[in-house]
Amino acid sequence: MASSPSPPPCPEITRNGNSDDDSKEEGLLMIDLERVRKSLIRQEDSIAFSLIERAKFPSNSSLYKSLQIPGFHGSLIQYIVKETEILHSKVGRYESPEEHAFFPDGLPLPLIPCPPKSPEFLHGAASSININSTIWKFYLEELLPLFTKQGDDAISYACTAVCDLNCLQALSRRIHYGKFVAEVKFRDAPEEYGPAIRAQDRDALMKLLTFEDVEEIVKKRVEKKAMIFSQEVNLNEKDDGDKQQNCKIDPSVLSRLYGEWVMPLTKLVQVEYLLRRLDK
Amino acid sequence: MASSPSPPPCPEITRNGNSDDDSKEEGLLMIDLERVRKSLIRQEDSIAFSLIERAKFPSNSSLYKSLQIPGFHGSLIQYIVKETEILHSKVGRYESPEEHAFFPDGLPLPLIPCPPKSPEFLHGAASSININSTIWKFYLEELLPLFTKQGDDAISYACTAVCDLNCLQALSRRIHYGKFVAEVKFRDAPEEYGPAIRAQDRDALMKLLTFEDVEEIVKKRVEKKAMIFSQEVNLNEKDDGDKQQNCKIDPSVLSRLYGEWVMPLTKLVQVEYLLRRLDK
Repeated sequence: MASSPSPPPCPEITRNGNSDDDSKEEGLLMIDLERVRKSLIRQEDSIAFSLIERAKFPSNSSLYKSLQIPGFHGSLIQYIVKETEILHSKVGRYESPEEHAFFPDGLPLPLIPCPPKSPEFLHGAASSININSTIWKFYLEELLPLFTKQGDDAISYACTAVCDLNCLQALSRRIHYGKFVAEVKFRDAPEEYGPAIRAQDRDALMKLLTFEDVEEIVKKRVEKKAMIFSQEVNLNEKDDGDKQQNCKIDPSVLSRLYGEWVMPLTKLVQVEYLLRRLDK
Repeated sequence: MASSPSPPPCPEITRNGNSDDDSKEEGLLMIDLERVRKSLIRQEDSIAFSLIERAKFPSNSSLYKSLQIPGFHGSLIQYIVKETEILHSKVGRYESPEEHAFFPDGLPLPLIPCPPKSPEFLHGAASSININSTIWKFYLEELLPLFTKQGDDAISYACTAVCDLNCLQALSRRIHYGKFVAEVKFRDAPEEYGPAIRAQDRDALMKLLTFEDVEEIVKKRVEKKAMIFSQEVNLNEKDDGDKQQNCKIDPSVLSRLYGEWVMPLTKLVQVEYLLRRLDK
């Protein structure tokens, strides 16, 4: 099942069916599969980079506590993320189906003309799926303490918050990419997903989307990426064997992030999407 | 000259003098030297990451052309950077002597109480040195075409601009870090810099700050970092030997970036700072 050909496997992009007809529809599908697969793998790098960058700063927990900001109730991180999203909305960020706001209510319309949307690839129900509140919670409460050192430097709050936002956006993009994954899979084997969708059977859909052996490979790959990208690079070639030492983040955090949150939440997005995939 | 001990060398942190007295002042200085050296090396990683992330998107040149935005004259990148800096200023980003705005005029004061500044490490003249207009120009006009593919995806302008901003801020932080480098060097050997400063002799200062052999080492190191961080990571160990293949950015771009812009401009900042170092 996990025996994908040469490219590294992705849990979501393992074919269920074995249809290998060469119709035009199949040709188009292959392009999508390849694009989705490449994007998922590339996004692993972005997530690793963003965590390594955040690890430059201590926990700076004052950022996450409510404070007095004129005209705003909440924490500094909430303020920065919300205000950044307002700005990004003005320049059309959320016109892309790959982007999801953490504070989507009342975002302004783009100030600039945005390109006419190409024919929608996703089903219309996609726009109603946003699990960023879950991502926000696990990132701040569970993930952050795993890879930042306790401490408060009192001067880097803005830069720390920008790193948090980069992490949050990278995770949000990756997890919500489940919509594209689900659409590609559905098009690949509608006969396989149809009955579970019509029965609104979450468990059956989750089973269809789960490939434990492939998930293990992904966890190993992201751990290796964290080790490679967070190593101390030295011109002395001999030092390269000792990558595990002096890593800027513990590589196992990436494996755990994918195993406990990224892959389960991507599957949740896929299930939510598929449940509505046949809605008129 | 370049024979620093075990740590990888930095062009700016090669001692000119050979004073090895163990006074308290010298002890303090060693802490600073180590901190500055580590920061410079760590910032190489941030710069490499930010360029690799920007390379995900095509050139998207529409971002850099003047357009109609209500209440604003300029390009979309100018709008996004300026508005982001206004937000970051409100949360105290520019209270840190390591941060410099690209549009510093009229930035708002922080909305939150910022920590009382610790005794200034830098001379007061530091705050008047900001060469971001030069950084902006070389980044957009010369660097960007070296590592992005020609093209316009029409939908990722906001995300592309965020990547540009991350690159610009990482470069700005690294280049203006020359202030700290210069201060550490001056404290290390005031008798060496004093005459050139009093004579306001730029050329003599530039000569004191230039170590060509060490600069070559830095260029090699950042090229190696670009290769390692932008490689396709595969679980198959055998593939690792072929890192140069499939790099997401051409590693030589990093070497060129450091050789043509980062190190010369850091030295320019150092000269500007030292010229004012003895001002009352």
